[in-house]
Amino acid sequence: MSTFTEEQAQLVLSSWNAMKTDAASISLKFFLRIFEIAPSAKEMFSFLRGSDVPLEKNPKLKAHAFTVFNTTCETAVQLYEVGAVKLRETTIKRLAPKHAMAGVKDAHFEVVKYALLDTIKEAIPDIWSEEMKNAWSEAYDQVAVAIKEEMKLLPSS
Amino acid sequence: MSTFTEEQAQLVLSSWNAMKTDAASISLKFFLRIFEIAPSAKEMFSFLRGSDVPLEKNPKLKAHAFTVFNTTCETAVQLYEVGAVKLRETTIKRLAPKHAMAGVKDAHFEVVKYALLDTIKEAIPDIWSEEMKNAWSEAYDQVAVAIKEEMKLLPSS
Repeated sequence: MSTFTEEQAQLVLSSWNAMKTDAASISLKFFLRIFEIAPSAKEMFSFLRGSDVPLEKNPKLKAHAFTVFNTTCETAVQLYEVGAVKLRETTIKRLAPKHAMAGVKDAHFEVVKYALLDTIKEAIPDIWSEEMKNAWSEAYDQVAVAIKEEMKLLPSS
Repeated sequence: MSTFTEEQAQLVLSSWNAMKTDAASISLKFFLRIFEIAPSAKEMFSFLRGSDVPLEKNPKLKAHAFTVFNTTCETAVQLYEVGAVKLRETTIKRLAPKHAMAGVKDAHFEVVKYALLDTIKEAIPDIWSEEMKNAWSEAYDQVAVAIKEEMKLLPSS
């Protein structure tokens, strides 16, 4: 059982609400930050390899970035309401092999986490706080653990 | 031959001069930033593994961080004056096996670069510019390439 509190869920939800209308552009900034930190990570995305479309106009990148951002927010609500990450089974079953095939390692989850937290901090500096950071951080960690646990169940390549 | 210009060397040197009196604390911030982005990278440092000393008080971490910072600055001067990275042969011969043994990969060089540039930007916001960023960026890339080239010459493990 997670010890995620109602207050933490509220912090994530209130920041999400403050970003909602800009969620598409914030999501994109989030992934552009990842590639600023680790340019070689672009190679991991099949839809970026050999693409002529500029990063910031790639619809699949936007969609992926939004999904990560939104899933982390939804996870926060679940952690409080259900006490655990309950991504739909079809979702997690699909996520694990995709991430494994792309060669995602623990260190990648770390960089994505840093980029996510830093992007949110820049998006809503007025309401950002250490408590809000910790709430997003725990929600992210729990969803990362859920994906990593599922990845461990895959036949090793 | 590098195309590093006198102006670029000046940009690195002038920012170095602006940071010099705080170089120790800026170096430390630089490495704390790396560990904020990638906490698992701490495992790569023999002197951090099993150490009870808080990160920010670890003298070896401070020394290492300062060396990376200072070497990048010195490289900028060399790139302009000599047209290439000329770390002393003993230095580069020592660096390559140490980095290889620690398991340093291309992605680590990327994260260190991001942390370095972002730390300098925060240290001297008033004089920071796109040109200054590019100058530091190229100096860093060249020293990273020099280490990586030397790493390739090592017997593979």
